[in-house]
Amino acid sequence: MARRNVRTFADRPIPQADLERVLYAGWAAPSAMNRQHRDFVVCTERARLEALAKVWQYAGHVATSAATVAVVAPGLSEKEAGEVDQFDIGQAVMAMAIAATDMGIGSGHASIGDQDKARAILGVPDDHYCAYLLALGYPADRPLAPLHHLNRRPFDDVVHRGHW
Amino acid sequence: MARRNVRTFADRPIPQADLERVLYAGWAAPSAMNRQHRDFVVCTERARLEALAKVWQYAGHVATSAATVAVVAPGLSEKEAGEVDQFDIGQAVMAMAIAATDMGIGSGHASIGDQDKARAILGVPDDHYCAYLLALGYPADRPLAPLHHLNRRPFDDVVHRGHW
Repeated sequence: MARRNVRTFADRPIPQADLERVLYAGWAAPSAMNRQHRDFVVCTERARLEALAKVWQYAGHVATSAATVAVVAPGLSEKEAGEVDQFDIGQAVMAMAIAATDMGIGSGHASIGDQDKARAILGVPDDHYCAYLLALGYPADRPLAPLHHLNRRPFDDVVHRGHW
Repeated sequence: MARRNVRTFADRPIPQADLERVLYAGWAAPSAMNRQHRDFVVCTERARLEALAKVWQYAGHVATSAATVAVVAPGLSEKEAGEVDQFDIGQAVMAMAIAATDMGIGSGHASIGDQDKARAILGVPDDHYCAYLLALGYPADRPLAPLHHLNRRPFDDVVHRGHW
């Protein structure tokens, strides 16, 4: 209820135990046939975060994050890896975002445009691709709190009862 | 920490308020550009659940669920809809599974093999496809509780520090 996209972060590190808890949530997430087509590269060095922020036009917030988790999957690209891996990666990213929220840590995910650059920064092998970044940190503005006015399609339009 | 795949359900309905809370979590989940490419069809009638259980060889558990949420997305198929929608649907399904867990409600998702059958059962328009089913109910065996021995690749193999 309190999860929102956070893209401006306070200059404050995340305690290691809390960061491990976020990673654990991603690690524990389910996947098709339990195949676990994901690895996580967690970055906290400022220089690497600043470099990562340039792999996609909307990844600028990664530069000032306290930590960013890159989700890596087998395959040359998301097209090659297929839809099921994407669904599973979505589950893992959401599990991490919710675990972070529970500790007051904000998160904002980003796609990756330049795969070669991302692979080089993270040392990811050529037969894997970088699917998403999840930037983490304490919000620079207001703390996380349950949201009461979400910008979504009306609930009763989205939820159908028994039949469309 | 307590979420696990549940596929055998107690013969006990989910209170409506709790079911709404699960749906709310899916509704509130983030999506690319907030485009919300998802609708939910929630089914609780036994006959419809039994019919839905036949849309995929591994969807049998839907028949005895207390409720099942079908996640529907625009497009003719998952291939046509693309990877980003799949990622977003993964986020929404995980949000619902975690919300359910928080109330002691088990969940088990299933793919859908026969789109035409699923569309007919749910009344879904031809320009939408049924992406996933999330079956919900109280576990018939042990209640949900934090798991300590997850069947996953070793944590330290999955999590890389700073660099692959």
